[in-house]
Amino acid sequence: MRGLASHPGARGLDDDCAVIELGGETLIVTHDAMAEGVHFLPSQDPADVAWKLVASNLSDLAAKGAEPLGVLLGYQLAEDNARFVAGLGEVLAHYHVPLLGGDTISASGNQVLGLTALGRATHRPVPSRGGARVGDGLWLTGPVGAALLGFEAFKGGTGDSLAYRRPEALLRQGQALAPLVTAMMDVSDGLLLDCRRMAEASQVTIAVDRGAVPIATPEARRDEALVWGEDYQLLFTAPANTRFPLGVHPIGEVIQRDTEPVLLDGRAPAGSLGYEHR
Amino acid sequence: MRGLASHPGARGLDDDCAVIELGGETLIVTHDAMAEGVHFLPSQDPADVAWKLVASNLSDLAAKGAEPLGVLLGYQLAEDNARFVAGLGEVLAHYHVPLLGGDTISASGNQVLGLTALGRATHRPVPSRGGARVGDGLWLTGPVGAALLGFEAFKGGTGDSLAYRRPEALLRQGQALAPLVTAMMDVSDGLLLDCRRMAEASQVTIAVDRGAVPIATPEARRDEALVWGEDYQLLFTAPANTRFPLGVHPIGEVIQRDTEPVLLDGRAPAGSLGYEHR
Repeated sequence: MRGLASHPGARGLDDDCAVIELGGETLIVTHDAMAEGVHFLPSQDPADVAWKLVASNLSDLAAKGAEPLGVLLGYQLAEDNARFVAGLGEVLAHYHVPLLGGDTISASGNQVLGLTALGRATHRPVPSRGGARVGDGLWLTGPVGAALLGFEAFKGGTGDSLAYRRPEALLRQGQALAPLVTAMMDVSDGLLLDCRRMAEASQVTIAVDRGAVPIATPEARRDEALVWGEDYQLLFTAPANTRFPLGVHPIGEVIQRDTEPVLLDGRAPAGSLGYEHR
Repeated sequence: MRGLASHPGARGLDDDCAVIELGGETLIVTHDAMAEGVHFLPSQDPADVAWKLVASNLSDLAAKGAEPLGVLLGYQLAEDNARFVAGLGEVLAHYHVPLLGGDTISASGNQVLGLTALGRATHRPVPSRGGARVGDGLWLTGPVGAALLGFEAFKGGTGDSLAYRRPEALLRQGQALAPLVTAMMDVSDGLLLDCRRMAEASQVTIAVDRGAVPIATPEARRDEALVWGEDYQLLFTAPANTRFPLGVHPIGEVIQRDTEPVLLDGRAPAGSLGYEHR
């Protein structure tokens, strides 16, 4: 939605989710679209595509500490719809999330899919990207780079990777962390890029300790792991002495706004920070 | 979503909207997708496409008597995005509805758009298609066939038609009617087809008085007007002696379930009843 963020009706588009107060509850809503050839490959199992479509949206809810209420699907029919429906059933059952509705269309060309996920906040204020404060620590729930290895294994036909095919949305972790964090988001487009987004939204600089970041790749590929997306770990800030009810990895700190929004071992990172959407 | 309605996680897919109880309020959510070449023509002004995308979803909310809370857009970038954004701004301003978020993607091929609209019910129980009762009257808020004439004028280059380019979602009317109706839906795919859907959902037969239906076409094209979609009038049932706070048109009655779900002047309608989605 960045391309439409200047629209006068637009609000809250600096974040992945809309937050709506309704009847004493706080509703969280997110919508992601995925296109064949861009976000998934024609050779992928449609069941895995369905899984990732749902899991990536639920991951946005996880970063808000939200409990899912359901999803709506915009589905463009393909040649084989049975595998998609099977994968949809699996992912919805896995997360105990109902399919609330949506639309099915028939159109030519590359398949385009859309998913809207709705949830209710379990903690208020709802964590956003914009709450990181100078002096906070920076944490990550788990390693990055597993999806990178999985993608390569898939492309090369050299192995199977659930991390790539069927990523997990960390809903339970998000709900446990929400009361403790000052800012939180999921890492969908690359750790350093998402650090920059958090830094920009919070008007701070985020200093990442390169060696402290847990990675799933060999050490030689650390820099790649730090900019590869789709691992859906949660990235969050909190007061430095916070104790967490689950295993998390300290990877840096929040400092006063510098000329650079992100520092990696004290220097501006070289090269791309991650996957930049249009 | 009819193709996925057999999915075990599916619920509420017999209707255009999902209805969710949340914190003492009732949330109404709907999602529609539109594809270039199927739901709109490449030659159409993208501003009008944006209008129809929003208005058709708001019309689903209108049929629930809902007040819109906002929309989320799944937007596939095209060559010209400025006209779409302009039309989006116009339709959102017209209905005082905020853009809450969404996703923008870049992909090749025909443009596919998705819109999710959220609203809150202004009256409970929320009207559905399934509440029509034997003995109820049947009403329509206004004429059908205006979009048919507009479509032909557009294709033939012979005139302009707001009814076709910029249909109205009857939100005010839907809110006024919601406390009075037993069943309500918007006519998006053809009056007779939508009558059949209401009859099936309500387990009744709907008897339409052909001559009583208000039409925007010449009389000679009455039968076409009765099966053409996109007029977005509200179709509803209520006890026969109900007095309404706005002008509405009595067009038939609800009778005991017959072998036919819809009767037109006492007989099964000939030919297609409307636009059948996949």
